[in-house]
Amino acid sequence: MSKPVCAVIGVCPGNGVSITKKFSDEGYAVAICSRNIEFLNKTSKKINNTHSFQYDATDLNAPEKVFSEITDQIGSIEVLVYNAGAGQFANIDNTTVESFQNAWEVNTRGLFTAVKAVIPNMRKNGKGNIVVIGATASLRGNVGTVPFASAKAAQRSLAQSLGKTLGPENIHVSYVIVDGVIGLDTTKKHMPDKQDDFFMDPDDIAESVFFLTRQPKSAWTFELDLRPFGEKW
Amino acid sequence: MSKPVCAVIGVCPGNGVSITKKFSDEGYAVAICSRNIEFLNKTSKKINNTHSFQYDATDLNAPEKVFSEITDQIGSIEVLVYNAGAGQFANIDNTTVESFQNAWEVNTRGLFTAVKAVIPNMRKNGKGNIVVIGATASLRGNVGTVPFASAKAAQRSLAQSLGKTLGPENIHVSYVIVDGVIGLDTTKKHMPDKQDDFFMDPDDIAESVFFLTRQPKSAWTFELDLRPFGEKW
Amino acid sequence: MSKPVCAVIGVCPGNGVSITKKFSDEGYAVAICSRNIEFLNKTSKKINNTHSFQYDATDLNAPEKVFSEITDQIGSIEVLVYNAGAGQFANIDNTTVESFQNAWEVNTRGLFTAVKAVIPNMRKNGKGNIVVIGATASLRGNVGTVPFASAKAAQRSLAQSLGKTLGPENIHVSYVIVDGVIGLDTTKKHMPDKQDDFFMDPDDIAESVFFLTRQPKSAWTFELDLRPFGEKW
Amino acid sequence: MSKPVCAVIGVCPGNGVSITKKFSDEGYAVAICSRNIEFLNKTSKKINNTHSFQYDATDLNAPEKVFSEITDQIGSIEVLVYNAGAGQFANIDNTTVESFQNAWEVNTRGLFTAVKAVIPNMRKNGKGNIVVIGATASLRGNVGTVPFASAKAAQRSLAQSLGKTLGPENIHVSYVIVDGVIGLDTTKKHMPDKQDDFFMDPDDIAESVFFLTRQPKSAWTFELDLRPFGEKW
Repeated sequence: MSKPVCAVIGVCPGNGVSITKKFSDEGYAVAICSRNIEFLNKTSKKINNTHSFQYDATDLNAPEKVFSEITDQIGSIEVLVYNAGAGQFANIDNTTVESFQNAWEVNTRGLFTAVKAVIPNMRKNGKGNIVVIGATASLRGNVGTVPFASAKAAQRSLAQSLGKTLGPENIHVSYVIVDGVIGLDTTKKHMPDKQDDFFMDPDDIAESVFFLTRQPKSAWTFELDLRPFGEKW
Repeated sequence: MSKPVCAVIGVCPGNGVSITKKFSDEGYAVAICSRNIEFLNKTSKKINNTHSFQYDATDLNAPEKVFSEITDQIGSIEVLVYNAGAGQFANIDNTTVESFQNAWEVNTRGLFTAVKAVIPNMRKNGKGNIVVIGATASLRGNVGTVPFASAKAAQRSLAQSLGKTLGPENIHVSYVIVDGVIGLDTTKKHMPDKQDDFFMDPDDIAESVFFLTRQPKSAWTFELDLRPFGEKW
Repeated sequence: MSKPVCAVIGVCPGNGVSITKKFSDEGYAVAICSRNIEFLNKTSKKINNTHSFQYDATDLNAPEKVFSEITDQIGSIEVLVYNAGAGQFANIDNTTVESFQNAWEVNTRGLFTAVKAVIPNMRKNGKGNIVVIGATASLRGNVGTVPFASAKAAQRSLAQSLGKTLGPENIHVSYVIVDGVIGLDTTKKHMPDKQDDFFMDPDDIAESVFFLTRQPKSAWTFELDLRPFGEKW
Repeated sequence: MSKPVCAVIGVCPGNGVSITKKFSDEGYAVAICSRNIEFLNKTSKKINNTHSFQYDATDLNAPEKVFSEITDQIGSIEVLVYNAGAGQFANIDNTTVESFQNAWEVNTRGLFTAVKAVIPNMRKNGKGNIVVIGATASLRGNVGTVPFASAKAAQRSLAQSLGKTLGPENIHVSYVIVDGVIGLDTTKKHMPDKQDDFFMDPDDIAESVFFLTRQPKSAWTFELDLRPFGEKW
């Protein structure tokens, strides 16, 4: 029997790779999607049952096109993880209208177009899972988060609308508030004074993302937060 | 001595006109801005001390251009009321990417560009007021509010960033959550079974908008909600 | 004609006195209520049209008893300002069950009993205003705010229930989130490195409290926040 | 080797029993605590590895006393689930001060005293889990939820303080917003027109409660919501 299919949009070092690994380990065929095809191909060699698809979240035609390729090649998408994120950390003075718009196109409009393209098959199958990776910035705007926070707030609102609409159709939409710094070589180098405990292990984030897709349907979570145990919040 | 200047973006029947009237009554010269120059000119004839400026909130060049005209003709803007709003009430299936984007351009990007253009003069003057008109949809997404709610959430997040940034520069940013249906001929005709009590009087909304610009600076409000006394919430 | 009556529960240096002064200036007879009768009598000598009533917010019988005295002596209460507050700033280890309970009795149960006692007359008069003074701690619990934050959250929830219940009866309930340090001799002495700008002037808070009681009923505010312009939030 | 110990406060038909069953299935010895010793003893016969302890959440001495019995008889508590709940659904007019206080004593003060009694051993062991069962009413007060919502809001605020305090000590505090009606014989009989899909299966709730105690510590959840897929929210 063929494996169920999980598509991860926004696969780059960190959450995207860890989520891919987790779903692969749990028996999924994983369609890994991002702009960087070289990184996808490298990742695909390291993780079993993964398939690379170049995907630009700001391209209005990408979802229809890529999702139909995925369906043809590995099967109908059962789980969609929307991990595409972008957004300068900048204040009102340092933010250009281009970067403000780009953050919204990647985080919010990209989710909108991906969902529009994925739900027809989920509806046909009578089930599905859409997990959106958000951030603390989804909850409030601060001085230095003008493009990112505004886009994430728009994304979260959209996810709420989707959850309320698609839940009764047996499509589970959930939103993950990641509240902490992911522990990558780059972030660790950038914050040399922080201990390992300070950082979030993306493999740990992936555990909760996967769990959301396994919740029995009489008790679904829409939103959960994730933060390292020592985080001040 | 010349009158202080208030610019109202998004003047159409309802809040925009009532806010204009209130600031005019309180001694301001009011720059009324919207796409519909005919409506502006008609309004301008009815309310003293108003000046019409054609303004398309989705036009990236409008703020710089129009605000410099306002400055030249009537003076430096002291109060900016951002009342531009748009957004179909539609669910995920009925929302096109164009209408989703348009809602964001009017509500969110339009606020971004207007604020970028207005703050240099406010900073020069060492003071200013920016009041943004939001809605209950700013707080959460529902089934039938996909474009509107997502854009309003993005707008509110941006307003939060602005408030935190500009407050210490003596520029007061505030956000008004309007939770109710404005009583206009159109809305009343559309809801013939509702009593007058059900509707919000836009003149009453204008009272609180004006009050926000008068709060003493040791006790500024960022956000307040407004709803009719009988509203279920 | 007799003056309208405002009762302020919790009159001590700061908000209570400033709110009293504001309502007195605006033509109200003000019933000032607190445990400290000496302070009330001193205050009463300084502010016109004020009347002292000893009142312990934790005493279950105080509201019925005192409000009927107020009604007899100066008239039916039109505006009730609930400013009683208490609550150690302490973490879970430093908080005794007694101080945890006391914070709740003053902030929450005291509001409950006061409202139960004041609404019969407001209903009879067909109108009324209840303004509750909250704090940032009403919105979230932190490490060092165990008794205070928990009590304030309970108080805010109760105020929400009251607002939804009493609004349609033309009784306006509102909740003020005070987010800053009140500038008193004691607080200024305690924070000698802070500039005057850092502190909230209680007279400025009183302006917004009074405004809430004047909002026209088609556009009532339930909640607003107040903070000094330079506050980080 | 002895089994790890989970204590469940508030074991009655529904969540309490299902959580007990789940932890028993996963290899825990479960201390089941409630006022109703007969029900506990009946439950204890049906579920393996359970031990009954009579426990009144409003009794200030219960936690110290019962937790030391648990420690002596089955071992040090590793997981505490606080499921004690009470609170009439009543509006301001129908709520007596006694029922208002009782709701707070069970939901809020009972959590406070239980946590004070359980943390010394958790600290000694360098780890622990505290899961608190909340409700939608924790988030807002409505007309008919005066005692319940106010108490739940106070409980949630306390849980937030606890999470921020105890996280860095490797004690994971989490809060579960149960947003739906539990499917019990009593609730189903009470709502005969609702389909089975309408109700939450308490076994499904228990899955998420258990998962919270298994999250790896670089990515802990403080709060998650749970609702049936068809719920309007």
